[in-house]
Amino acid sequence: MAEIVAIKHITPEGPVWSSLDNGVLRLVLANPPANALSIDTMAALQAQLDGAREDSDVRVVVIAASGNVFCAGHDLKEVTAHRSDDDRGRAFFELTMSRCSVLMQSIVRHPKPVIAEVDGLATAAGLQLVASCDLAIASDQSTFCTPGVNIGLFCSTPMVALSRNVSRKQAMEMLLTGETIDATTARDFGLINRVVPREYLTHIVAKYVQTIVSKSPLTLKIGKEAFYAQAEMGLAEAYDHASRVMVENMLARDAEEGIGAFIDKRNAEWKGE
Amino acid sequence: MAEIVAIKHITPEGPVWSSLDNGVLRLVLANPPANALSIDTMAALQAQLDGAREDSDVRVVVIAASGNVFCAGHDLKEVTAHRSDDDRGRAFFELTMSRCSVLMQSIVRHPKPVIAEVDGLATAAGLQLVASCDLAIASDQSTFCTPGVNIGLFCSTPMVALSRNVSRKQAMEMLLTGETIDATTARDFGLINRVVPREYLTHIVAKYVQTIVSKSPLTLKIGKEAFYAQAEMGLAEAYDHASRVMVENMLARDAEEGIGAFIDKRNAEWKGE
Amino acid sequence: MAEIVAIKHITPEGPVWSSLDNGVLRLVLANPPANALSIDTMAALQAQLDGAREDSDVRVVVIAASGNVFCAGHDLKEVTAHRSDDDRGRAFFELTMSRCSVLMQSIVRHPKPVIAEVDGLATAAGLQLVASCDLAIASDQSTFCTPGVNIGLFCSTPMVALSRNVSRKQAMEMLLTGETIDATTARDFGLINRVVPREYLTHIVAKYVQTIVSKSPLTLKIGKEAFYAQAEMGLAEAYDHASRVMVENMLARDAEEGIGAFIDKRNAEWKGE
Repeated sequence: MAEIVAIKHITPEGPVWSSLDNGVLRLVLANPPANALSIDTMAALQAQLDGAREDSDVRVVVIAASGNVFCAGHDLKEVTAHRSDDDRGRAFFELTMSRCSVLMQSIVRHPKPVIAEVDGLATAAGLQLVASCDLAIASDQSTFCTPGVNIGLFCSTPMVALSRNVSRKQAMEMLLTGETIDATTARDFGLINRVVPREYLTHIVAKYVQTIVSKSPLTLKIGKEAFYAQAEMGLAEAYDHASRVMVENMLARDAEEGIGAFIDKRNAEWKGE
Repeated sequence: MAEIVAIKHITPEGPVWSSLDNGVLRLVLANPPANALSIDTMAALQAQLDGAREDSDVRVVVIAASGNVFCAGHDLKEVTAHRSDDDRGRAFFELTMSRCSVLMQSIVRHPKPVIAEVDGLATAAGLQLVASCDLAIASDQSTFCTPGVNIGLFCSTPMVALSRNVSRKQAMEMLLTGETIDATTARDFGLINRVVPREYLTHIVAKYVQTIVSKSPLTLKIGKEAFYAQAEMGLAEAYDHASRVMVENMLARDAEEGIGAFIDKRNAEWKGE
Repeated sequence: MAEIVAIKHITPEGPVWSSLDNGVLRLVLANPPANALSIDTMAALQAQLDGAREDSDVRVVVIAASGNVFCAGHDLKEVTAHRSDDDRGRAFFELTMSRCSVLMQSIVRHPKPVIAEVDGLATAAGLQLVASCDLAIASDQSTFCTPGVNIGLFCSTPMVALSRNVSRKQAMEMLLTGETIDATTARDFGLINRVVPREYLTHIVAKYVQTIVSKSPLTLKIGKEAFYAQAEMGLAEAYDHASRVMVENMLARDAEEGIGAFIDKRNAEWKGE
């Protein structure tokens, strides 16, 4: 596998800026003022994630945002504009929910680790985006909420991701009251991994990225896929599945190389096969 | 929807006192000395919960208790008296377990949020009652345990609720040792939402209630139902279900009103439809 | 049921030393330097666990280790030696995974409570062993990791146990980075129950054991089995199952004795039936 080098920088434009540097695809939500997940923003994010699936130059994906808001969820003005459609907006709402659910599952099903780098407010589908990532690091200025209940629209799809990260009573408190929690509470609840001072946020994310980029991409792909698969199984089925996965992993060259390097006390050279 | 006003007060009598005030149905366990869940107490609680399902005057249910014990679980003297039945008590035990399991699921399936206001000891089925509520606020004098193992009767039905709130090792420690945890530990375990000084307990619960009562009852019903439904599904199925729920929610008048009010920066007026 | 007395001591030999004292089967991993779960070590552990299932002299199992490492997972040298087999090691890897998965499930399915007493490093399948026990008490010198990703072999089977103890983001952080957490973090994550100073470790474990040994073995068996069974069910099914379990438990002599003793304020005498 070729050494990782900075290979392209895409000029910032559109609702999602992207850059690829040393194996890290950095996606920055840029749909001011609230980085709302409009149809266009979701499409841009989806396209980036889809493109990165088989792109061997992408080893890790980081999702960040420009401005003071990480992501405020769906675009309520866009949604409201479709109330005057012949079907009172049903088709557009279905499109919005469908696109959003596919997008969130694309993160979970993505073969590369996806890290949320949060600095600011993450609400509703914005919180769902954080919860859907494999890891989430947030600045101490970040806040989180599921405030749909305040506007008559319960955060039902965000709670699918929220309730798979946070315990039941804590999720229910957020959902029923719509109130905001700070980053430390979000970490205590299990919604995010770590809280760091704002000025260290990119630095700490870079350290996670550096750690993960040093691993075999094949191994990360195998493991991440197995993680979410076994999470939905009973114990016996989960062990059957994971055992089969592990035997195949053990027979891959990267495991042979990695174990050999470990025994020989040298650095492994991943082939990605 | 009519403004919420205090509409009735039921004089305290029977094993469960009830009062309805400003949309809050307050149920107080009053079966001294231990507020045991005897057949009569369970029946009274069940009747109140059933009556509140379709009663639009009830927006939130609070379950509290009189005296120093929140609830000590089943009535062991009542149970023991049936040992001399022809069937050694089997029919009565089956009745007890059946009534209790229906009661606990009635809380989970209830269309209105149910909050436990705990001050004192919650043990066995009493702890199950706390765990089954959507939210639980406890005084710093409260304690929690599943002590059935001490009397040869493992807390098997309480653990259904306990293990859906508390992580595996922590639940097992409580179940295998029967030992008591304090309120702060219960909060750290995820069994309750918040610990407050005893003198502030009703005040803090009132603040939660006030927050929740301000929401659309229809939205709360839709969201609570979807929460527990999706919790039992795999990720793809959960997203399909929650997406359908959210589209219907979006088409309801309360969402149209709520989103409109949010955009117009005014207070929403819920119609409950 | 006969009073519990020290009945046998097995001289330390083989990869797993065992001793039986006052109802406690103590199994000590003794495969230096890393207490690796070689085929022989797994077989010795499996034999001890199998033998203890129906042995009424065994009331609790403690799994501990000799030396500074609790358990470093599979024996990589043993695994690597089979790379030169005709099938490149496939049959041996399948055997290893199969034996390991059966062993871990034997702990979960064991009729007696199993406690991990951890002092030192628990990695990969060693961490899986800790996670698979009902309870885990660790010294403050203990550390935990799933470092397979570092050697190209994702900890896919360890994560089956890990992800049933630890929340999603926290499990993913350990699995994707391979980094080590200390005992306090492991307790905060829910992987272990308690952290104690090294010099108190055996003393604290002895207190847990003493508490659990005083319970009815039948009740512990019924409860532990029901715990893991209901954990894989939806709410309604879990209540049906647990209710049936509880009725049978109530009709057992030990519950009759235990409840009678509680009402009469005397110590119960368990018959184990």
